[in-house]
Amino acid sequence: MNVTVDRRTRHFRTVTIDARLNYVLLIEQRLLPHEFRVFPARDFCQTAQAIKDMVVRGAGAIGATAAYGLAQGARAFRGCNLAKFLRHVETVSDTLKAARPTAVDPVNAMNQVRQAMRAGQTVEEQQALALAAAEEFADEDVRHCEDIGRHGAKLIRSGMNILTHCNAGWLAFVDVGSATAPLYAAQRKGRRFHVYCDETRPRSQGATLTAWELAQQKISHQIIADNAAGHLMQRGKIDLVIVGSDRTLGRTGEVANKIGTYTKAVLAKRHGIPFYVAIPLSTIDWHLKSGFDIPIEERHESEVLGAWGVLQNPEPTLRRRSRIANPAARTYVRVANPTSGAVNPGFDVTPAELITGIITPVGILKPRQLWARRRELGCALSA
Amino acid sequence: MNVTVDRRTRHFRTVTIDARLNYVLLIEQRLLPHEFRVFPARDFCQTAQAIKDMVVRGAGAIGATAAYGLAQGARAFRGCNLAKFLRHVETVSDTLKAARPTAVDPVNAMNQVRQAMRAGQTVEEQQALALAAAEEFADEDVRHCEDIGRHGAKLIRSGMNILTHCNAGWLAFVDVGSATAPLYAAQRKGRRFHVYCDETRPRSQGATLTAWELAQQKISHQIIADNAAGHLMQRGKIDLVIVGSDRTLGRTGEVANKIGTYTKAVLAKRHGIPFYVAIPLSTIDWHLKSGFDIPIEERHESEVLGAWGVLQNPEPTLRRRSRIANPAARTYVRVANPTSGAVNPGFDVTPAELITGIITPVGILKPRQLWARRRELGCALSA
Repeated sequence: MNVTVDRRTRHFRTVTIDARLNYVLLIEQRLLPHEFRVFPARDFCQTAQAIKDMVVRGAGAIGATAAYGLAQGARAFRGCNLAKFLRHVETVSDTLKAARPTAVDPVNAMNQVRQAMRAGQTVEEQQALALAAAEEFADEDVRHCEDIGRHGAKLIRSGMNILTHCNAGWLAFVDVGSATAPLYAAQRKGRRFHVYCDETRPRSQGATLTAWELAQQKISHQIIADNAAGHLMQRGKIDLVIVGSDRTLGRTGEVANKIGTYTKAVLAKRHGIPFYVAIPLSTIDWHLKSGFDIPIEERHESEVLGAWGVLQNPEPTLRRRSRIANPAARTYVRVANPTSGAVNPGFDVTPAELITGIITPVGILKPRQLWARRRELGCALSA
Repeated sequence: MNVTVDRRTRHFRTVTIDARLNYVLLIEQRLLPHEFRVFPARDFCQTAQAIKDMVVRGAGAIGATAAYGLAQGARAFRGCNLAKFLRHVETVSDTLKAARPTAVDPVNAMNQVRQAMRAGQTVEEQQALALAAAEEFADEDVRHCEDIGRHGAKLIRSGMNILTHCNAGWLAFVDVGSATAPLYAAQRKGRRFHVYCDETRPRSQGATLTAWELAQQKISHQIIADNAAGHLMQRGKIDLVIVGSDRTLGRTGEVANKIGTYTKAVLAKRHGIPFYVAIPLSTIDWHLKSGFDIPIEERHESEVLGAWGVLQNPEPTLRRRSRIANPAARTYVRVANPTSGAVNPGFDVTPAELITGIITPVGILKPRQLWARRRELGCALSA
């Protein structure tokens, strides 16, 4: 089965809420690109688990999921004791926060929702405000991504070869995406370019999600092993790198993103290739003073020791006939030596000096300009 | 099944010959790390096919296989007509050469054997000389690797963390290996260190072959995604990088090796981490004047779009019970989006300026010293 979502006629958001059932609805990203299915998280614990289990991933998407999850949890409270309600909301918030400790989006998103809730005098009022604030957070995420696209499209000319890492596409946000937003905007302007997607081991989000998105949008692209980017740069085959970010430090311009991002930045610097990071405002961390303080999640070694995919005959002549009999049946194969273990850091930190510019909803900035323009970027801190 | 070859009590060479049966015996590398089996090539055609089908791979190993294959073919000749015998040997040589057209080792190895055969006056004498020369070639490969180990071990201190890429271990040679030789030599001196094996996508030789070898030798090691090396270096967790080489340019010190090697060299340079390349003399190319002239093999995209492994439950609790029911049954899974393609360069070129030293059988040299010391390194060219 070849999954096609025509984004012009049928429009899916990555994250939304069914307000009547109080279910958070998520595109089940672990089945992509082989099957398109919506995952209903029936209570805030399931929503937290969905974040943890990577049903949903990506900065904006997990921010919105946490915002909706907080509203969902708040709305599930029965009774009118405000003090008890607030303790319950605290529990909901802590549960959702713990699902992805490296990310800052869920924290920011939930702060925004809780801020809005304070205007309510009763439990019922606060519940209604929570839902409205979560919806507003999701809508704002979409607007921000569209703004990123508008600014970032200026960097893209026809004929360019562009490298991406991991997935910071619309699947990583409520819609549109960050790193992919400039691609989609440039395409709408009629520019034609080619994208190399790092496969992004160990979870292969580039080979699965980004490649799937680009195929849906009919953008010319090819997947490469993470090992191949350096060689392509050396041979002059990459003109621009655009990646996303899980957390950007407002004070230093350092960027935490999927493991391997730092390596591409080092390579781009060596070859004089512009390296841009596209970020919505919610991923900016205005508190931390050093990238070394960002906790780097150590993930399960099974991700490195094997791979998930669908059973298939690799021979090209046979492939056409036997193309994915049962698309949902993703299978794990152990690749590595059975008696060896692995280390699996999920993220790395790229210093400001390697970053040509940060594409934000308010424009393209130098990494070190973030702090000076913090008011405009929504920072509530004083210096 | 957990494959264990105790290299102290039972000693296997990667390539050898059963002189009585006239079989070339090869460790069947396509089944590793999940099953250990010896592949008997019963005539020179099967030996050539084994090279072609990757039963055996790695510079030194395919050189020795070609040398033994030539002796095997020569010894299969019946009769005493020397002219007919020499035509037969020509056919054997052409067949073996065609099995891996880009490699330089089989050609060098067979030239050495044919050179030795010329001292014989009769078919029988030449047959005996061919076998002796093939054995000598294999023994020399082992001696060279041991010399590399002796020199390279000086770089390794207890407590070090060492990064490797791909497999340049004893499976890639007749025995001992090039990039792994210093590890084994240092271990014999009682030094205790830790090795990070790049998984080395797309063919995962690090996760399969190098990890398997190190496990056999009881050397502390962990596998990492290729994306993780930069992060580990940034956090001070790597002290030394040692890789092998498929072709080293004697004139410039440039090194062609498995895709991704260049990236590790760039990262090592940035972090001031010593980057060494271990090479036997047979991989030095004294002719080419620039790394850009090295043909970079473009391999099949299916390698990037999926992975080979054994079916397994990734959950750690279940893993213990269900460990690899049928170890030989390696399965291909398609990981990537089904409608996307890939680019798959097999090798890249690392410039001399990124290489701290080249560990050769005659000592550790700066890359640019190779040419000056070419006599000692076995170069037959004049300047």
